[in-house]
Amino acid sequence: MRISELSAKSGVAIPTIKYYLREGMLHQGEQTAATRAEYDESHLRRLRLIRALLEVGRLSVASIKQIIAAVEDESMPTHEVLGTAHYALGPAVEPEPGEEWQAARAQVDELIEKLGWDIHPAAPTRDELAQTLVRMRQLGVAIDLGPYVEVVRKLVSEVEMNTIPFDGPRDAAVESLVLGTVLYGRALDTLRRMAHESESARRLSS
Amino acid sequence: MRISELSAKSGVAIPTIKYYLREGMLHQGEQTAATRAEYDESHLRRLRLIRALLEVGRLSVASIKQIIAAVEDESMPTHEVLGTAHYALGPAVEPEPGEEWQAARAQVDELIEKLGWDIHPAAPTRDELAQTLVRMRQLGVAIDLGPYVEVVRKLVSEVEMNTIPFDGPRDAAVESLVLGTVLYGRALDTLRRMAHESESARRLSS
Repeated sequence: MRISELSAKSGVAIPTIKYYLREGMLHQGEQTAATRAEYDESHLRRLRLIRALLEVGRLSVASIKQIIAAVEDESMPTHEVLGTAHYALGPAVEPEPGEEWQAARAQVDELIEKLGWDIHPAAPTRDELAQTLVRMRQLGVAIDLGPYVEVVRKLVSEVEMNTIPFDGPRDAAVESLVLGTVLYGRALDTLRRMAHESESARRLSS
Repeated sequence: MRISELSAKSGVAIPTIKYYLREGMLHQGEQTAATRAEYDESHLRRLRLIRALLEVGRLSVASIKQIIAAVEDESMPTHEVLGTAHYALGPAVEPEPGEEWQAARAQVDELIEKLGWDIHPAAPTRDELAQTLVRMRQLGVAIDLGPYVEVVRKLVSEVEMNTIPFDGPRDAAVESLVLGTVLYGRALDTLRRMAHESESARRLSS
């Protein structure tokens, strides 16, 4: 297809497509004449991925370039490619000095160990959870993570993972992971706050 | 207690306490001399509430003032006071023009009706969920909300609601709602992404 059709099908404006081509985020089409190139499904898939990372994941162009480099590096196992996108979607958390942080982080590491979860030792989610535990402790909120672990295990393994096409092209798997992580996460959070309102109404009216 | 002790116990600096007093966010202490006032547990509780809204809820001072006005309005039922804080914690979502939005919003309203949830007709969570459904549809993500509904219902009614002291002072109930909504929400989201990583590793290594 021509660039005009690629633009219409992807919903990405032609000048933006040209920018992605110049930046190496989108691979060149097949040159059929001096000023004409042909594009195919792989270009469409890449544009969908960029849109998902940009609009849904709200990632910077710099982060998107890193993820695309991972998608294109054929020596990288698929799990690592997905991890690159996955880690970029989370908030950046800086470890804090002091014993309180170390205790919380140790608690997180023990939990993962006990659950037998396969989480990279340098995964940023470890510090993210440690930070939440520190804040809770500082503010006097007690939490038993047990029911939360049970719930996410069920949701992720029985619902969310089944929506990711692990066997197809990497672009599609990464796109699906980003959309799933962000959009399902938003739906979960909103429904949770709805349940809060409803349950609070029920308890306070009786 | 004196203002210095109030500051030490609350972790809020004296100039900040004086600012809250001037702005009417904190009630005056009992004047015991021309330049001396006595403060009590109610002041400490209010400062804890302000910190929770500011540091954990990341709300603006203007939003915090509105919530405090609700806490102090004794004619307002507790459920509405909690609702005021609750709604302020969610993202602001503007309804979009067009049939796609209307269809998604109708789907949300039907879901709530079918579940028998007690959600205010003007609750912002309705538009928030509609927006997520619209984005999903635009991006070709299919979602069955059923498993999510089941999960939040269980978490909220069996775990989270039991941490809110409905019978105590309103400051404490609102503080607890804010901490619970935000911190438990963060823990849930992080654990969910951890489960993603682990499950993805398991599937791709086999």
